[in-house]
Amino acid sequence: MKLSEDWIIGFVDGEGCFHISVLRHPEMNTGYQVLPEFTVVQHERDKQILYALKSYFKCGVVRKNRGDRWCYRIRKLSCLETLCNFFSKHPLKTKKNVDYIKFRRIIQDMIQGKHLTKEGLKKIIKTAMTMNTADRKKLLQIKQNLGIK
Amino acid sequence: MKLSEDWIIGFVDGEGCFHISVLRHPEMNTGYQVLPEFTVVQHERDKQILYALKSYFKCGVVRKNRGDRWCYRIRKLSCLETLCNFFSKHPLKTKKNVDYIKFRRIIQDMIQGKHLTKEGLKKIIKTAMTMNTADRKKLLQIKQNLGIK
Repeated sequence: MKLSEDWIIGFVDGEGCFHISVLRHPEMNTGYQVLPEFTVVQHERDKQILYALKSYFKCGVVRKNRGDRWCYRIRKLSCLETLCNFFSKHPLKTKKNVDYIKFRRIIQDMIQGKHLTKEGLKKIIKTAMTMNTADRKKLLQIKQNLGIK
Repeated sequence: MKLSEDWIIGFVDGEGCFHISVLRHPEMNTGYQVLPEFTVVQHERDKQILYALKSYFKCGVVRKNRGDRWCYRIRKLSCLETLCNFFSKHPLKTKKNVDYIKFRRIIQDMIQGKHLTKEGLKKIIKTAMTMNTADRKKLLQIKQNLGIK
């Protein structure tokens, strides 16, 4: 199945999710690991669409999620950079684009290794907290642990 | 905001809904009214997208739904015909297309007035029951009331 750029933008405007998790990781200098991911979830009847997205971006994995849901997921930083190049060239039309721009800023920081420093991590958490997909309660707890005002 | 055809297909593949309701209506010969509708629901932050769809199709209404949700809705038969012409020319890529084809069949039957006869209504209900968006329990009850095997 061949997907056009505009179709992908429309579909991701509807179904895509840009998400930043921050997880406890005692082996990291900061004590935390930043885990950005892009996901598209569909009913299993439409898993061929997820595979078509995977073919288009030449990145990511398609996995069974809970129940009858399947998920296309990109977590690898170099792949997320490819994805960001796509959505910078072909902007989303919904307010999801605001989340995407924040997501991209975090990816750019991570490419520069900024998430490995406490200052960089603080900045990332502050940005992530303003995203629509944010787990604010959890991020707020980490923010307090790191002593961010 | 200008929408491209491919973007609309992608967005409707994600967010659009083709639905057939059958309601009790004592003044109709059959005792029932067939109510087809196409809807796209969004958070209020993206209601401008719904207005952009309305501008594109030159049909339908944008209304506040429950809570913070807004809805673009087409119910008028002549407008649904315009919509069907669009999605026949530019097919959906997900399995939603299977629902769309059934929806279009019902619209075509309604344009010919078939829903006003008991035989036509039976056929419509049989088709509607196989749609992914069907309220099967309700349609089954009507089917039994009409004595359809």
